[in-house]
Formats: sequence, structure tokens, C-alpha cells
Amino acid sequence: MNSLSAPITAPDARYYQQALDRQAQLTKPPGSLGLLEDCAVRLAAMQRNERPRLERIHVSVFAADHGIAEEGVSAFPQVVTMEMVKNFAAGGAAVNVLARHVDACFEVVDVGLLQPVALADVISHRAGAGTANFKQAAAMDNAQLTIALAAGQAAVARALANQADLFIGGEMGIANTTSASALAAASLRIPAADITGAGTGLNAGQIDHKAGVIDSALRRHQAVLHSPLDILKTLGGFEIAALTAAYISAAQQRLPVLIDGFISSVAALLAMGINPGCVDWFFYGHCSAEKGHGRVLQALNARPLLNLQMRLGEGSGAVLAVPLLQMACSLHNEMATFSQAQVSTT
Amino acid sequence: MNSLSAPITAPDARYYQQALDRQAQLTKPPGSLGLLEDCAVRLAAMQRNERPRLERIHVSVFAADHGIAEEGVSAFPQVVTMEMVKNFAAGGAAVNVLARHVDACFEVVDVGLLQPVALADVISHRAGAGTANFKQAAAMDNAQLTIALAAGQAAVARALANQADLFIGGEMGIANTTSASALAAASLRIPAADITGAGTGLNAGQIDHKAGVIDSALRRHQAVLHSPLDILKTLGGFEIAALTAAYISAAQQRLPVLIDGFISSVAALLAMGINPGCVDWFFYGHCSAEKGHGRVLQALNARPLLNLQMRLGEGSGAVLAVPLLQMACSLHNEMATFSQAQVSTT
Repeated sequence: MNSLSAPITAPDARYYQQALDRQAQLTKPPGSLGLLEDCAVRLAAMQRNERPRLERIHVSVFAADHGIAEEGVSAFPQVVTMEMVKNFAAGGAAVNVLARHVDACFEVVDVGLLQPVALADVISHRAGAGTANFKQAAAMDNAQLTIALAAGQAAVARALANQADLFIGGEMGIANTTSASALAAASLRIPAADITGAGTGLNAGQIDHKAGVIDSALRRHQAVLHSPLDILKTLGGFEIAALTAAYISAAQQRLPVLIDGFISSVAALLAMGINPGCVDWFFYGHCSAEKGHGRVLQALNARPLLNLQMRLGEGSGAVLAVPLLQMACSLHNEMATFSQAQVSTT
Repeated sequence: MNSLSAPITAPDARYYQQALDRQAQLTKPPGSLGLLEDCAVRLAAMQRNERPRLERIHVSVFAADHGIAEEGVSAFPQVVTMEMVKNFAAGGAAVNVLARHVDACFEVVDVGLLQPVALADVISHRAGAGTANFKQAAAMDNAQLTIALAAGQAAVARALANQADLFIGGEMGIANTTSASALAAASLRIPAADITGAGTGLNAGQIDHKAGVIDSALRRHQAVLHSPLDILKTLGGFEIAALTAAYISAAQQRLPVLIDGFISSVAALLAMGINPGCVDWFFYGHCSAEKGHGRVLQALNARPLLNLQMRLGEGSGAVLAVPLLQMACSLHNEMATFSQAQVSTT
């Protein structure tokens, strides 16, 4: 895990300033492209390129099962994790459709399903047969945490081998909003009720039950919930650990990251706790309808691109935002300047 | 102008229900694609097609000058209207870049620049050499209003001749947020200060001056500001009249419309006043940073797709949202159903 603390270079301030200067010359009122200007300028600094570009998009979806599912915290049965992995492999899930639309390289990684799937299109990087029920015990041991983190780093290595310009992580795991809510509550030191939401579709009573399960776990493990890695080991999911390490690893290797929804943002929050400089490399696809997402985005000082009341996960809200980042680059690169177009400024 | 009151057919309720049923079968928690589900279902009903599609996008930018500019209500000189028309024709403006990104058919229409431009790529449909200063007199006469409205209808006719699946209108005209704010204040019967914003970049004192100019005009014309067409003739811009008629004409001919920012939304508000059924055919690209936009969207009962603090106009915020609508269609059409993918629901 030492590699997670390896240094992260900040995006290049000289290219940042140069890109800001160019934005001021483009034929539009200053600032009128809003958040798109910020995206283009940051990408120029990350890529050390006057003309930033996002052509090759890499999407890794990490899937794992959760022992906490036995507490009745999800609207769907646990078998759906594996069924959806098969759906990803067959290309039928939402994230597949969106990845095709932006011509992304897509992969699904088994980080710890209850049982392995025998499908050639699923990458196997298993930390275990699901986590332990964290209401009763730590979700994983050190060896499992190490494997799950390495799964995220390996995905980034594949992305870089494919010359990716942007890394997107997604997740699938029945009951993983329960794990993510517990991780967020422990990280932000807030009660579970402040952050626990409907997940795939719980009613109010079921959400109360879910928050109760989380609070019970937080009390049980109170004495060991110190560092982000402690918290991840105790309350985490394998796929959330993989995302956390992937985000750090991407930042360490100057690969911009587009964060998805609640669960991915909790992984980003843990990544920030482990190696704070990583957030300089993050963009945020959307604010989801999941209750705790706004709070987590706030802690990350994030400005998400979309707010479409989505709550699907899988990386879907991030992939959906890819065209916005691409168009931000195109505007930056292709618009005429005031002098080129002979447009008056005063 | 009788053609503006010709009936508008509602989108097909049978296809709407069929599309809703399909959404419930797709491999995702019900409702988890948020606003995208609503977009896909509405498009299916508009197109009477189980598999809605948005392949051919038509973008018409209407440009005109405004007599009210002489009141010092814009951060840019009036000559910029013509300079930007040349920039549109040369392909260097923001909306050009975005239109290329979504492979849209793009055109720019002179509805009344101070002087005609001699460029083959600019469609000439002139209602006059700019409007009159509406602080002093009605912005246009009946004959001019009729021409400006016809310019919008002609653009929709071209879109339909090109088999467009979606119509986007944009606008350019120095001082046209002043006209739009006056139109909105008169339509919503609110004081100018409630809706007047920075436009291309006014400071607080300049915004106060702009609101004062509008209030003065509202008082002067009070006795004649009755119907939406009266309001448009008295306070409008030629390009705003063209947008208003284009939106109604598109709806009359079952062509879905994607509305852009503040000025376009004011045209949509006027269109709703003239022929209320047209709003069933509208999507809204974004909520802009211009102060009055939220209020106008509220009056339209609109749910905009984006909120990126943009305030550029030209149709830019609508074209930027095109990939979202296209991906909404792809998700609806291409995702596996629970039974196809053998995914459990309970």
C-alpha cells in the first residue's frame, strides 16, 4: 500500500495560465461558457497541452458482493450482482450503451463476487468471495484490502497501456450504498441518518433500518476507524477499495479522472484522505439523487457537470458527462479569437 | 399571423405509455435514469416511434439589431451583432464548434441587422434595419412583426425539408437581453428589477440602469401591452419574434424543439402565450447564469438538462445538451430488459 502515498504532481500552472489567457481571447463574453471554461483550462494544465483533448476514454466497472446484504438493506437480491456482471459482459447495461456512444474502451472486473463467473470478458482480480458482514466483523482483512487496491491500480495500468486520456471507474454490488454510506459517515464523522438514502429504491422505513444497521456498525468498530485505509478495511467493499486506489493511481500518473455518483464519490473522498493531491486530477460527472451525494461532493469541493436525478451507478453518470468535457475542449481549441474574427471588444 | 394559432397535436399518449412500460423493463432500478427516462418517453410519444432517435439536428441562429442599444444597456458595442454574424458564417463562434460536434445542420438568418451583410452563407429575411428604441416608441410595426415571425416559420420549413429530428433556435443581437427582460417583465407582470441581469457582463450599477430603462418603457407602453403579440411588437427584437414563431411552427408540425437560454426561453414563454400546446414539444437545454432565466423556466414548468453557469446565447446551451437527449434515446433503445438479460427483480 506504500504506492498509494507516492507523490502526485500538480497540473502545470504555466499551461493553466496560458489556457486562461486563450479563453479571454475567444469570441464570447468573458466567463460566458461557465464551468466549461474551467474544465478546458484544467485539462490543458493536466495534459500540458495548449489544445487539450479527450479522445480515448477508459471505463472500468468493478463488481463485488457485500456481506452486509444479509441485513436486508437492498431492494434487490444479492444474486443481481452476478447477473449484472453478466449483463455488462453481454453489453446490455446502461453503462455499456453510454460507453458505446462515446466510443470508450470498456471492461468489467470481478473484485470479489460471491462466486467467480466463467466469462472471458470479465477480468478476474478477486479479493475474496464477498466481504464479511461489517455489522458483525471487519469487512475485509489486510490481505484482501491489498488485493482490492491492486485491482484498481491494475485497471489504471491497462488504461494507460491503451493511451487513455480519461479514466472512469464504475461499480456494481448489491448493498454497496450501505457500505458507501458507512464509509462516508465514518470519514465525515456524521450520523448515518444524515447520509443514508434509498439506494436502488428503499422506502422510508427501510432507509431507517439501513441507517440503524450502519450506526450499529459504526459503534462496534469505533475504536479502529482512524485512517482512511482503516475505515475502508472495516466498512468497505472490494469495489470501493479498487476505485479508491484507481483514482490515486491515475492522479499519480497524470491521468485525468471523471468521478461518477455517490459510491464513486465516497471512494474519491477516501482517496483524498489517503493522498490529498489526487483531487486536482478529478472531474465530477453529476450530482445524483442519492441522499448523501451532495454532502460528499461538498466535502470534495466538487462542481459536478450534471444533475439529472440519476441514481444508477455503474459509472453511468460519468460517461454521460464525457461529451460535455469533449465539447469544452473543442470550444477551447476551435473557437475564433476576437482578433482572428475581427470582433470588437469595446 | 393566423397560422400561429393553427392547432397543435399533443404527443401520442399510446406511444408514451408503451415507452413507459419499456423503461420499467430495462435492467436498472425503476426511475434510476432520472430525467433521461422522461426525455426518451416524451420523444417516443412525439415521434410515434417505439425507438425514438435524434440523428438530424437543425440549428438556426437568428440575428438582429436593437434600437434600445443606444440607451447604453450592453457591455459590447452594437457593431458586434454584425461582426458575430460574420463569425457565424466563418464557423468560428461557440455555436459553430458545438454544432460541428453533434454534426448538426447550421444556418444563420439576418432578421434585421442595421445593415445587410453581403455573405452567401447568411440567409436574408429582414424585417428592418434594427428595431426602434422601445423606450421611445414601439420596437416594430405590424408589417415588420409579420416578416420576423415568417422568418422563424421559414427556418422550420427548411429544417423539415432536411428531415430534421430536432429544431434548435439561437439568437444574436447586442442589447437583446434588455428586450428579453422587458418582454418577460411584461408577460409575467413583474418589475424589471426582478428579472434584469448582467447580460454580456454589466456591473451592478449598469444593471440598475438597464432595469430603469425597461421600467420606463413598460410605463410608456402600459396601455398596449395586452396580448403576447402586442408585447412582442412593442418590446421585442426581430430575432425573438422569429424564435417565437419557429417554436410554434415546429410544434404544429410535430418537430421536437430544444430551447436554449434566457432569450430563447422568453420566446418560448411568448409562444406558450400565443398557442399553449406548443410547450408539449419543448425540451430545455440548460438553466443559464442570466438572472431572469430561472423565473422564466419556472413559468414554463421547464426541467432544464444542464446548469453550467453559461450565459452566451447563440443556441449554445441547447446544442450542448444534444448528446444527453441522444444518449437518452440510446439507453431506451439498446439496454437489455430484465428478461433478456435474466436479471432478477425480486
